[in-house]
Amino acid sequence: MKLLRVGAAGEERPALLAADGSLRDLSGLVADIDGALLADAGALARVRAAGAAGGLPVLDAGSRIGPPLTGIGKVVCIGLNYHDHAAETGAQPPAEPVVFFKAADTVVGPNDTVLVPRNSTKTDWEVELAVVIGRTARYLSSHEEALAHVAGYALANDVSEREFQLERGGTWDKGKNCETFNPLGPWLVTADEVPDPQALSLRTWVNGELKQDGSTADQIFPVAEVVRYVSQFMTLRPGDVINTGTPAGVAMGRPDPKPYLRPGDVVELEITGLGRQRQEFGAA
Amino acid sequence: MKLLRVGAAGEERPALLAADGSLRDLSGLVADIDGALLADAGALARVRAAGAAGGLPVLDAGSRIGPPLTGIGKVVCIGLNYHDHAAETGAQPPAEPVVFFKAADTVVGPNDTVLVPRNSTKTDWEVELAVVIGRTARYLSSHEEALAHVAGYALANDVSEREFQLERGGTWDKGKNCETFNPLGPWLVTADEVPDPQALSLRTWVNGELKQDGSTADQIFPVAEVVRYVSQFMTLRPGDVINTGTPAGVAMGRPDPKPYLRPGDVVELEITGLGRQRQEFGAA
Repeated sequence: MKLLRVGAAGEERPALLAADGSLRDLSGLVADIDGALLADAGALARVRAAGAAGGLPVLDAGSRIGPPLTGIGKVVCIGLNYHDHAAETGAQPPAEPVVFFKAADTVVGPNDTVLVPRNSTKTDWEVELAVVIGRTARYLSSHEEALAHVAGYALANDVSEREFQLERGGTWDKGKNCETFNPLGPWLVTADEVPDPQALSLRTWVNGELKQDGSTADQIFPVAEVVRYVSQFMTLRPGDVINTGTPAGVAMGRPDPKPYLRPGDVVELEITGLGRQRQEFGAA
Repeated sequence: MKLLRVGAAGEERPALLAADGSLRDLSGLVADIDGALLADAGALARVRAAGAAGGLPVLDAGSRIGPPLTGIGKVVCIGLNYHDHAAETGAQPPAEPVVFFKAADTVVGPNDTVLVPRNSTKTDWEVELAVVIGRTARYLSSHEEALAHVAGYALANDVSEREFQLERGGTWDKGKNCETFNPLGPWLVTADEVPDPQALSLRTWVNGELKQDGSTADQIFPVAEVVRYVSQFMTLRPGDVINTGTPAGVAMGRPDPKPYLRPGDVVELEITGLGRQRQEFGAA
Protein backbone atom coordinates (compact mmCIF):
# COMPACT_ATOMS: atom_id res chain seq x y z
CA MET A 1 0.00 0.00 0.00
CA LYS A 2 0.97 3.61 -0.52
CA LEU A 3 -0.24 5.59 2.48
CA LEU A 4 -0.13 9.36 2.58
CA ARG A 5 -1.56 12.39 4.34
CA VAL A 6 -3.20 15.22 2.42
CA GLY A 7 -4.43 18.67 3.37
CA ALA A 8 -3.12 21.88 4.88
CA ALA A 9 -0.20 21.62 7.34
CA GLY A 10 -1.49 20.38 10.68
CA GLU A 11 -4.87 19.42 9.17
CA GLU A 12 -3.86 16.48 6.99
CA ARG A 13 -6.19 13.51 6.54
CA PRO A 14 -4.97 9.95 6.11
CA ALA A 15 -5.26 8.68 2.55
CA LEU A 16 -4.44 5.80 0.26
CA LEU A 17 -3.04 6.05 -3.24
CA ALA A 18 -5.32 3.66 -5.13
CA ALA A 19 -4.24 1.43 -7.99
CA ASP A 20 -6.03 3.76 -10.44
CA GLY A 21 -3.93 6.72 -9.21
CA SER A 22 -6.75 8.36 -7.27
CA LEU A 23 -6.39 9.51 -3.67
CA ARG A 24 -8.83 7.76 -1.32
CA ASP A 25 -9.88 9.17 2.05
CA LEU A 26 -9.05 6.90 5.00
CA SER A 27 -10.35 9.25 7.70
CA GLY A 28 -13.48 7.15 8.16
CA LEU A 29 -11.33 4.09 8.86
CA VAL A 30 -8.29 5.26 10.84
CA ALA A 31 -7.50 8.23 13.04
CA ASP A 32 -4.24 9.01 11.27
CA ILE A 33 -1.11 7.39 9.86
CA ASP A 34 1.10 7.01 12.89
CA GLY A 35 2.98 4.48 14.97
CA ALA A 36 -0.23 3.15 16.51
CA LEU A 37 -1.64 2.30 13.08
CA LEU A 38 1.61 0.74 11.89
CA ALA A 39 1.71 -1.49 14.98
CA ASP A 40 -1.90 -2.62 14.44
CA ALA A 41 -1.96 -5.44 11.89
CA GLY A 42 -5.75 -5.63 12.06
CA ALA A 43 -6.23 -1.96 11.23
CA LEU A 44 -3.76 -2.19 8.35
CA ALA A 45 -5.63 -5.22 7.02
CA ARG A 46 -8.91 -3.27 7.14
CA VAL A 47 -7.30 -0.41 5.21
CA ARG A 48 -6.01 -2.88 2.63
CA ALA A 49 -9.40 -4.55 2.28
CA ALA A 50 -11.22 -1.24 1.96
CA GLY A 51 -8.76 -0.14 -0.70
CA ALA A 52 -9.28 -3.35 -2.64
CA ALA A 53 -13.06 -3.08 -2.38
CA GLY A 54 -12.85 0.32 -4.08
CA GLY A 55 -15.56 2.18 -2.18
CA LEU A 56 -13.43 4.73 -0.32
CA PRO A 57 -14.27 8.42 -0.99
CA VAL A 58 -12.07 10.13 -3.57
CA LEU A 59 -10.00 13.12 -2.41
CA ASP A 60 -8.99 16.12 -4.50
CA ALA A 61 -5.81 15.13 -6.32
CA GLY A 62 -4.62 18.75 -6.14
CA SER A 63 -4.40 18.85 -2.36
CA ARG A 64 -1.12 19.55 -0.58
CA ILE A 65 0.68 16.38 0.47
CA GLY A 66 1.97 16.35 4.05
CA PRO A 67 4.51 14.03 5.61
CA PRO A 68 3.11 10.46 5.28
CA LEU A 69 3.43 9.85 9.02
CA THR A 70 2.59 11.87 12.12
CA GLY A 71 3.55 11.43 15.76
CA ILE A 72 7.11 10.54 14.78
CA GLY A 73 9.10 9.84 17.94
CA LYS A 74 12.62 10.19 16.64
CA VAL A 75 14.50 10.34 13.36
CA VAL A 76 17.72 8.37 13.60
CA CYS A 77 20.16 9.08 10.78
CA ILE A 78 23.05 7.07 9.39
CA GLY A 79 26.05 9.00 8.07
CA LEU A 80 28.53 8.01 5.36
CA ASN A 81 26.58 4.88 4.45
CA TYR A 82 27.37 4.73 0.71
CA HIS A 83 30.80 3.82 -0.59
CA ASP A 84 30.63 6.52 -3.27
CA HIS A 85 29.55 9.25 -0.81
CA ALA A 86 32.24 8.35 1.74
CA ALA A 87 34.79 8.58 -1.10
CA GLU A 88 33.59 12.00 -2.30
CA THR A 89 33.86 13.46 1.21
CA GLY A 90 37.38 12.07 1.63
CA ALA A 91 36.26 9.84 4.53
CA GLN A 92 37.22 6.22 5.04
CA PRO A 93 34.20 3.88 4.93
CA PRO A 94 33.17 3.64 8.58
CA ALA A 95 33.84 0.39 10.45
CA GLU A 96 30.36 0.54 11.96
CA PRO A 97 27.36 2.79 11.28
CA VAL A 98 27.70 6.49 12.10
CA VAL A 99 24.57 7.55 14.00
CA PHE A 100 23.17 11.04 14.46
CA PHE A 101 19.73 12.54 15.01
CA LYS A 102 17.18 14.80 13.45
CA ALA A 103 14.36 15.98 15.71
CA ALA A 104 10.87 14.97 14.54
CA ASP A 105 9.84 18.62 14.27
CA THR A 106 12.15 19.06 11.26
CA VAL A 107 9.83 16.84 9.18
CA VAL A 108 7.74 18.60 6.50
CA GLY A 109 5.80 17.50 3.47
CA PRO A 110 7.62 16.38 0.30
CA ASN A 111 6.83 19.54 -1.65
CA ASP A 112 6.87 22.11 1.16
CA THR A 113 9.24 25.06 1.10
CA VAL A 114 12.59 24.35 2.75
CA LEU A 115 14.23 27.29 4.51
CA VAL A 116 17.91 28.09 4.11
CA PRO A 117 18.88 29.00 7.68
CA ARG A 118 20.01 32.50 8.58
CA ASN A 119 23.79 32.82 8.36
CA SER A 120 23.99 29.69 6.21
CA THR A 121 26.45 29.47 3.34
CA LYS A 122 26.57 25.68 3.00
CA THR A 123 23.04 24.25 2.79
CA ASP A 124 23.16 20.90 0.99
CA TRP A 125 20.84 18.16 -0.27
CA GLU A 126 20.87 14.43 0.55
CA VAL A 127 18.40 12.00 -1.04
CA GLU A 128 17.82 9.10 1.36
CA LEU A 129 15.83 5.93 1.82
CA ALA A 130 13.85 6.38 5.06
CA VAL A 131 12.84 3.27 6.99
CA VAL A 132 9.67 3.46 9.10
CA ILE A 133 9.54 1.22 12.16
CA GLY A 134 6.37 -0.80 12.80
CA ARG A 135 7.17 -2.79 15.95
CA THR A 136 9.13 -2.00 19.10
CA ALA A 137 12.70 -3.15 18.55
CA ARG A 138 15.37 -3.75 21.23
CA TYR A 139 18.56 -5.75 20.80
CA LEU A 140 17.51 -7.46 17.58
CA SER A 141 19.68 -10.47 16.82
CA SER A 142 19.38 -11.06 13.07
CA HIS A 143 18.75 -9.34 9.78
CA GLU A 144 15.55 -11.32 9.31
CA GLU A 145 14.27 -10.13 12.68
CA ALA A 146 15.28 -6.56 11.80
CA LEU A 147 13.29 -6.53 8.55
CA ALA A 148 10.27 -7.93 10.41
CA HIS A 149 10.25 -4.69 12.46
CA VAL A 150 10.07 -2.46 9.36
CA ALA A 151 6.59 -1.18 8.49
CA GLY A 152 7.60 0.49 5.28
CA TYR A 153 9.75 2.94 3.40
CA ALA A 154 9.66 6.55 2.29
CA LEU A 155 11.71 9.10 0.40
CA ALA A 156 13.55 11.68 2.53
CA ASN A 157 15.75 14.69 1.91
CA ASP A 158 18.24 14.86 4.80
CA VAL A 159 18.91 18.58 4.29
CA SER A 160 22.22 19.54 5.90
CA GLU A 161 24.12 22.73 6.68
CA ARG A 162 27.76 21.72 6.30
CA GLU A 163 29.34 24.60 8.21
CA PHE A 164 26.99 24.05 11.15
CA GLN A 165 27.57 20.27 10.88
CA LEU A 166 31.35 20.19 10.57
CA GLU A 167 32.94 23.54 11.44
CA ARG A 168 31.09 24.76 14.53
CA GLY A 169 32.31 22.28 17.14
CA GLY A 170 30.71 19.18 18.52
CA THR A 171 28.53 16.70 16.74
CA TRP A 172 26.77 16.71 13.40
CA ASP A 173 23.34 17.39 14.93
CA LYS A 174 23.92 21.16 14.83
CA GLY A 175 23.75 21.13 11.03
CA LYS A 176 20.92 18.65 10.67
CA ASN A 177 18.10 20.14 12.73
CA CYS A 178 17.27 23.49 11.20
CA GLU A 179 13.54 24.01 10.70
CA THR A 180 12.07 22.25 7.61
CA PHE A 181 15.26 20.17 7.14
CA ASN A 182 13.52 16.81 6.64
CA PRO A 183 11.05 16.64 3.75
CA LEU A 184 9.44 13.18 3.93
CA GLY A 185 7.17 11.38 1.49
CA PRO A 186 5.01 11.61 -0.57
CA TRP A 187 4.15 8.05 0.46
CA LEU A 188 4.77 5.56 3.18
CA VAL A 189 5.07 2.43 1.05
CA THR A 190 4.44 -0.72 3.06
CA ALA A 191 7.32 -3.19 3.17
CA ASP A 192 5.48 -5.83 1.12
CA GLU A 193 5.79 -3.51 -1.90
CA VAL A 194 9.56 -3.15 -1.48
CA PRO A 195 10.79 -6.75 -1.75
CA ASP A 196 14.46 -5.70 -1.97
CA PRO A 197 15.37 -2.41 -0.25
CA GLN A 198 18.92 -2.84 -1.59
CA ALA A 199 17.84 -2.50 -5.21
CA LEU A 200 16.44 1.04 -5.32
CA SER A 201 17.66 3.93 -7.47
CA LEU A 202 17.93 7.34 -5.78
CA ARG A 203 18.21 10.59 -7.74
CA THR A 204 18.40 14.30 -7.02
CA TRP A 205 18.12 17.21 -9.44
CA VAL A 206 18.91 20.82 -8.53
CA ASN A 207 17.37 23.42 -10.81
CA GLY A 208 16.76 20.61 -13.27
CA GLU A 209 20.35 19.29 -13.34
CA LEU A 210 20.95 15.70 -12.19
CA LYS A 211 23.21 15.78 -9.12
CA GLN A 212 22.79 12.42 -7.36
CA ASP A 213 22.24 9.15 -9.22
CA GLY A 214 22.89 6.26 -6.85
CA SER A 215 21.60 2.90 -5.75
CA THR A 216 20.92 1.40 -2.35
CA ALA A 217 23.04 -1.54 -3.64
CA ASP A 218 26.00 0.73 -2.75
CA GLN A 219 25.03 1.02 0.93
CA ILE A 220 27.89 0.02 3.23
CA PHE A 221 25.41 -1.17 5.86
CA PRO A 222 22.18 -2.45 4.30
CA VAL A 223 18.77 -1.64 5.81
CA ALA A 224 18.56 -4.89 7.79
CA GLU A 225 21.98 -4.29 9.37
CA VAL A 226 21.17 -0.66 10.13
CA VAL A 227 17.98 -1.60 11.98
CA ARG A 228 19.68 -4.47 13.84
CA TYR A 229 22.65 -2.26 14.75
CA VAL A 230 20.69 0.77 15.94
CA SER A 231 18.53 -1.49 18.16
CA GLN A 232 21.66 -2.37 20.18
CA PHE A 233 21.98 1.26 21.30
CA MET A 234 18.41 2.49 21.64
CA THR A 235 14.83 1.28 21.57
CA LEU A 236 13.11 1.76 18.23
CA ARG A 237 9.37 2.28 18.44
CA PRO A 238 6.49 2.21 15.95
CA GLY A 239 6.55 5.46 14.02
CA ASP A 240 10.29 6.06 14.47
CA VAL A 241 12.15 6.79 11.25
CA ILE A 242 15.69 5.91 10.17
CA ASN A 243 17.26 7.92 7.33
CA THR A 244 19.75 5.42 5.93
CA GLY A 245 22.31 7.73 4.33
CA THR A 246 22.90 9.39 0.97
CA PRO A 247 24.82 8.38 -2.17
CA ALA A 248 27.45 10.53 -3.87
CA GLY A 249 26.65 13.81 -5.55
CA VAL A 250 26.04 16.28 -2.73
CA ALA A 251 27.29 19.87 -3.03
CA MET A 252 30.00 19.24 -0.40
CA GLY A 253 31.57 16.56 -2.61
CA ARG A 254 32.01 18.84 -5.65
CA PRO A 255 34.90 21.08 -6.73
CA ASP A 256 34.99 24.69 -5.53
CA PRO A 257 32.95 26.78 -5.76
CA LYS A 258 30.62 24.16 -4.32
CA PRO A 259 27.03 24.64 -5.46
CA TYR A 260 25.36 25.05 -2.06
CA LEU A 261 21.68 25.92 -2.05
CA ARG A 262 20.33 29.46 -2.06
CA PRO A 263 16.77 30.78 -1.75
CA GLY A 264 15.05 30.29 -5.09
CA ASP A 265 16.77 26.98 -5.88
CA VAL A 266 14.54 24.01 -6.68
CA VAL A 267 15.49 20.50 -5.50
CA GLU A 268 13.74 17.41 -6.88
CA LEU A 269 14.31 13.92 -5.52
CA GLU A 270 13.12 10.45 -6.44
CA ILE A 271 13.48 6.84 -5.32
CA THR A 272 12.22 3.88 -7.34
CA GLY A 273 8.69 3.09 -6.23
CA LEU A 274 8.67 5.67 -3.43
CA GLY A 275 7.62 8.72 -5.43
CA ARG A 276 9.06 12.15 -6.03
CA GLN A 277 9.61 15.37 -4.08
CA ARG A 278 10.02 18.97 -5.25
CA GLN A 279 11.11 21.72 -2.89
CA GLU A 280 11.59 25.40 -3.55
CA PHE A 281 14.12 26.82 -1.15
CA GLY A 282 13.31 29.99 0.74
CA ALA A 283 14.97 32.11 3.43
CA ALA A 284 14.47 31.57 7.17
CA MET B 1 5.43 26.59 41.42
CA LYS B 2 6.67 23.05 41.60
CA LEU B 3 4.75 20.98 39.05
CA LEU B 4 5.00 17.21 38.90
CA ARG B 5 3.29 14.11 37.59
CA VAL B 6 2.43 11.21 39.89
CA GLY B 7 1.14 7.69 39.30
CA ALA B 8 2.12 4.55 37.44
CA ALA B 9 4.16 4.95 34.28
CA GLY B 10 1.89 6.08 31.47
CA GLU B 11 -0.93 6.88 33.89
CA GLU B 12 0.52 9.90 35.69
CA ARG B 13 -1.72 12.75 36.81
CA PRO B 14 -0.61 16.35 36.91
CA ALA B 15 0.09 17.64 40.42
CA LEU B 16 1.38 20.58 42.39
CA LEU B 17 3.75 20.43 45.35
CA ALA B 18 1.98 22.71 47.83
CA ALA B 19 3.72 25.02 50.28
CA ASP B 20 2.85 22.62 53.12
CA GLY B 21 4.64 19.77 51.32
CA SER B 22 1.48 17.96 50.24
CA LEU B 23 0.84 16.82 46.68
CA ARG B 24 -2.27 18.41 45.15
CA ASP B 25 -4.18 16.94 42.22
CA LEU B 26 -4.35 19.21 39.17
CA SER B 27 -6.25 16.78 36.95
CA GLY B 28 -9.49 18.74 37.43
CA LEU B 29 -7.78 21.89 36.16
CA VAL B 30 -5.38 20.86 33.38
CA ALA B 31 -5.12 17.91 31.01
CA ASP B 32 -1.45 17.31 31.76
CA ILE B 33 1.87 19.09 32.22
CA ASP B 34 3.09 19.56 28.69
CA GLY B 35 4.16 22.16 26.18
CA ALA B 36 0.58 23.32 25.63
CA LEU B 37 0.19 24.11 29.35
CA LEU B 38 3.56 25.85 29.55
CA ALA B 39 2.66 28.06 26.57
CA ASP B 40 -0.69 29.01 28.13
CA ALA B 41 -0.16 31.83 30.64
CA GLY B 42 -3.84 31.86 31.56
CA ALA B 43 -3.88 28.17 32.47
CA LEU B 44 -0.69 28.53 34.51
CA ALA B 45 -2.26 31.47 36.35
CA ARG B 46 -5.33 29.36 37.15
CA VAL B 47 -3.10 26.60 38.54
CA ARG B 48 -1.23 29.13 40.65
CA ALA B 49 -4.46 30.66 41.97
CA ALA B 50 -5.95 27.27 42.78
CA GLY B 51 -2.77 26.30 44.61
CA ALA B 52 -2.86 29.51 46.66
CA ALA B 53 -6.56 29.04 47.48
CA GLY B 54 -5.69 25.69 49.03
CA GLY B 55 -8.72 23.68 47.97
CA LEU B 56 -7.11 21.22 45.56
CA PRO B 57 -7.53 17.51 46.40
CA VAL B 58 -4.60 15.91 48.24
CA LEU B 59 -2.81 13.02 46.51
CA ASP B 60 -1.09 10.06 48.17
CA ALA B 61 2.43 11.23 49.03
CA GLY B 62 3.69 7.69 48.49
CA SER B 63 2.85 7.56 44.80
CA ARG B 64 5.49 7.02 42.14
CA ILE B 65 6.74 10.26 40.65
CA GLY B 66 6.94 10.33 36.86
CA PRO B 67 8.81 12.76 34.64
CA PRO B 68 7.39 16.25 35.37
CA LEU B 69 6.60 16.85 31.71
CA THR B 70 4.99 14.79 28.97
CA GLY B 71 4.83 15.25 25.20
CA ILE B 72 8.48 16.31 25.13
CA GLY B 73 9.43 17.10 21.53
CA LYS B 74 13.20 16.91 21.75
CA VAL B 75 15.95 16.88 24.36
CA VAL B 76 18.87 19.01 23.21
CA CYS B 77 22.06 18.44 25.21
CA ILE B 78 25.12 20.61 25.71
CA GLY B 79 28.47 18.84 26.09
CA LEU B 80 31.58 19.97 27.97
CA ASN B 81 29.81 23.00 29.44
CA TYR B 82 31.63 23.23 32.78
CA HIS B 83 35.25 24.32 33.06
CA ASP B 84 36.00 21.63 35.65
CA HIS B 85 34.39 18.83 33.59
CA ALA B 86 36.18 19.85 30.37
CA ALA B 87 39.44 19.77 32.35
CA GLU B 88 38.81 16.30 33.82
CA THR B 89 38.13 14.84 30.37
CA GLY B 90 41.32 16.40 28.97
CA ALA B 91 39.29 18.55 26.53
CA GLN B 92 39.88 22.22 25.80
CA PRO B 93 36.92 24.38 26.80
CA PRO B 94 34.87 24.54 23.60
CA ALA B 95 34.81 27.80 21.63
CA GLU B 96 31.05 27.47 21.19
CA PRO B 97 28.49 25.09 22.69
CA VAL B 98 28.76 21.41 21.77
CA VAL B 99 25.26 20.17 20.85
CA PHE B 100 23.96 16.62 20.80
CA PHE B 101 20.58 14.94 21.25
CA LYS B 102 18.72 12.56 23.46
CA ALA B 103 15.41 11.24 22.11
CA ALA B 104 12.38 12.09 24.23
CA ASP B 105 11.65 8.39 24.77
CA THR B 106 14.75 8.07 26.97
CA VAL B 107 13.01 10.20 29.65
CA VAL B 108 11.87 8.36 32.80
CA GLY B 109 10.85 9.38 36.30
CA PRO B 110 13.44 10.60 38.81
CA ASN B 111 13.41 7.42 40.87
CA ASP B 112 12.76 4.84 38.15
CA THR B 113 15.18 2.01 37.49
CA VAL B 114 17.87 2.88 34.97
CA LEU B 115 19.08 0.02 32.78
CA VAL B 116 22.76 -0.60 32.11
CA PRO B 117 22.70 -1.51 28.39
CA ARG B 118 23.69 -4.95 27.18
CA ASN B 119 27.39 -5.08 26.31
CA SER B 120 28.05 -1.92 28.32
CA THR B 121 31.22 -1.55 30.37
CA LYS B 122 31.24 2.26 30.68
CA THR B 123 27.86 3.50 31.92
CA ASP B 124 28.33 6.87 33.62
CA TRP B 125 26.32 9.49 35.53
CA GLU B 126 25.93 13.22 34.75
CA VAL B 127 23.92 15.52 37.00
CA GLU B 128 22.52 18.37 34.90
CA LEU B 129 20.34 21.44 35.05
CA ALA B 130 17.53 20.88 32.53
CA VAL B 131 15.85 23.92 30.99
CA VAL B 132 12.23 23.55 29.87
CA ILE B 133 11.11 25.77 26.99
CA GLY B 134 7.79 27.63 27.31
CA ARG B 135 7.55 29.63 24.07
CA THR B 136 8.55 28.92 20.48
CA ALA B 137 12.06 30.24 20.00
CA ARG B 138 13.82 30.94 16.67
CA TYR B 139 16.89 33.09 16.18
CA LEU B 140 16.73 34.79 19.58
CA SER B 141 18.87 37.91 19.70
CA SER B 142 19.65 38.49 23.38
CA HIS B 143 20.07 36.76 26.71
CA GLU B 144 17.06 38.61 28.08
CA GLU B 145 14.93 37.33 25.23
CA ALA B 146 16.31 33.81 25.74
CA LEU B 147 15.35 33.70 29.42
CA ALA B 148 11.85 34.95 28.53
CA HIS B 149 11.39 31.69 26.56
CA VAL B 150 12.24 29.48 29.55
CA ALA B 151 9.21 28.05 31.38
CA GLY B 152 11.21 26.45 34.16
CA TYR B 153 13.93 24.12 35.31
CA ALA B 154 14.33 20.51 36.38
CA LEU B 155 16.97 18.09 37.58
CA ALA B 156 18.25 15.59 34.99
CA ASN B 157 20.67 12.69 34.93
CA ASP B 158 22.23 12.62 31.44
CA VAL B 159 23.19 8.94 31.70
CA SER B 160 25.95 8.14 29.20
CA GLU B 161 27.69 5.04 27.90
CA ARG B 162 31.25 6.23 27.20
CA GLU B 163 32.34 3.42 24.91
CA PHE B 164 29.21 3.84 22.78
CA GLN B 165 29.66 7.63 22.88
CA LEU B 166 33.35 7.90 22.10
CA GLU B 167 34.79 4.64 20.78
CA ARG B 168 32.19 3.31 18.35
CA GLY B 169 32.51 5.84 15.51
CA GLY B 170 30.42 8.83 14.67
CA THR B 171 28.73 11.21 17.03
CA TRP B 172 27.99 11.14 20.73
CA ASP B 173 24.30 10.28 20.26
CA LYS B 174 25.08 6.55 20.15
CA GLY B 175 26.01 6.59 23.84
CA LYS B 176 23.28 8.92 25.01
CA ASN B 177 20.06 7.28 23.83
CA CYS B 178 19.88 3.90 25.53
CA GLU B 179 16.47 3.21 27.07
CA THR B 180 15.87 4.91 30.48
CA PHE B 181 18.94 7.14 30.02
CA ASN B 182 17.28 10.42 31.02
CA PRO B 183 15.74 10.49 34.51
CA LEU B 184 13.98 13.87 34.82
CA GLY B 185 12.43 15.57 37.84
CA PRO B 186 10.97 15.25 40.41
CA TRP B 187 9.65 18.74 39.69
CA LEU B 188 9.34 21.24 36.92
CA VAL B 189 10.09 24.40 38.92
CA THR B 190 8.75 27.51 37.20
CA ALA B 191 11.34 30.11 36.28
CA ASP B 192 10.05 32.67 38.80
CA GLU B 193 11.33 30.40 41.58
CA VAL B 194 14.83 30.23 40.07
CA PRO B 195 15.91 33.87 39.99
CA ASP B 196 19.54 33.02 39.16
CA PRO B 197 20.09 29.76 37.24
CA GLN B 198 23.85 30.38 37.48
CA ALA B 199 23.88 30.02 41.28
CA LEU B 200 22.74 26.41 41.75
CA SER B 201 24.68 23.60 43.43
CA LEU B 202 24.62 20.19 41.71
CA ARG B 203 25.61 16.99 43.49
CA THR B 204 25.77 13.28 42.71
CA TRP B 205 26.34 10.38 45.08
CA VAL B 206 27.02 6.81 43.96
CA ASN B 207 26.33 4.14 46.57
CA GLY B 208 26.32 6.94 49.14
CA GLU B 209 29.69 8.44 48.15
CA LEU B 210 29.76 12.05 46.91
CA LYS B 211 31.05 12.05 43.33
CA GLN B 212 29.98 15.37 41.79
CA ASP B 213 29.82 18.63 43.74
CA GLY B 214 29.60 21.53 41.30
CA SER B 215 27.89 24.82 40.67
CA THR B 216 26.18 26.26 37.61
CA ALA B 217 28.43 29.28 38.25
CA ASP B 218 31.13 27.17 36.54
CA GLN B 219 29.15 26.82 33.29
CA ILE B 220 31.18 27.93 30.27
CA PHE B 221 27.98 28.98 28.47
CA PRO B 222 25.28 30.09 30.89
CA VAL B 223 21.63 29.12 30.43
CA ALA B 224 20.71 32.35 28.63
CA GLU B 225 23.54 31.90 26.12
CA VAL B 226 22.73 28.22 25.60
CA VAL B 227 19.09 29.00 24.75
CA ARG B 228 20.04 31.93 22.50
CA TYR B 229 22.73 29.88 20.76
CA VAL B 230 20.66 26.74 20.17
CA SER B 231 17.85 28.87 18.69
CA GLN B 232 20.22 29.90 15.85
CA PHE B 233 20.37 26.27 14.67
CA MET B 234 16.91 24.86 15.35
CA THR B 235 13.46 25.91 16.46
CA LEU B 236 12.80 25.36 20.16
CA ARG B 237 9.18 24.65 21.02
CA PRO B 238 7.14 24.60 24.24
CA GLY B 239 7.92 21.37 26.05
CA ASP B 240 11.38 20.96 24.54
CA VAL B 241 14.14 20.34 27.08
CA ILE B 242 17.79 21.41 27.10
CA ASN B 243 20.21 19.49 29.34
CA THR B 244 22.88 22.12 29.99
CA GLY B 245 25.91 19.95 30.77
CA THR B 246 27.52 18.35 33.79
CA PRO B 247 30.21 19.47 36.25
CA ALA B 248 33.35 17.46 37.11
CA GLY B 249 33.21 14.17 38.93
CA VAL B 250 31.94 11.66 36.40
CA ALA B 251 33.39 8.13 36.28
CA MET B 252 35.19 8.87 32.99
CA GLY B 253 37.19 11.64 34.67
CA ARG B 254 38.60 9.42 37.42
CA PRO B 255 41.79 7.32 37.61
CA ASP B 256 41.69 3.70 36.43
CA PRO B 257 39.93 1.53 37.24
CA LYS B 258 37.16 4.02 36.54
CA PRO B 259 34.06 3.38 38.66
CA TYR B 260 31.51 2.87 35.87
CA LEU B 261 28.04 1.80 36.91
CA ARG B 262 26.90 -1.79 37.29
CA PRO B 263 23.50 -3.30 38.01
CA GLY B 264 22.79 -2.86 41.72
CA ASP B 265 24.49 0.53 41.99
CA VAL B 266 22.45 3.40 43.42
CA VAL B 267 22.83 6.93 42.07
CA GLU B 268 21.40 9.93 43.90
CA LEU B 269 21.39 13.44 42.46
CA GLU B 270 20.36 16.86 43.71
CA ILE B 271 20.19 20.47 42.55
CA THR B 272 19.42 23.38 44.87
CA GLY B 273 15.67 23.98 44.85
CA LEU B 274 14.99 21.39 42.13
CA GLY B 275 14.73 18.31 44.34
CA ARG B 276 16.44 14.97 44.47
CA GLN B 277 16.57 11.75 42.43
CA ARG B 278 17.46 8.19 43.40
CA GLN B 279 17.97 5.48 40.81
CA GLU B 280 18.80 1.84 41.27
CA PHE B 281 20.59 0.52 38.23
CA GLY B 282 19.42 -2.72 36.63
CA ALA B 283 20.34 -4.78 33.58
CA ALA B 284 18.77 -4.29 30.13
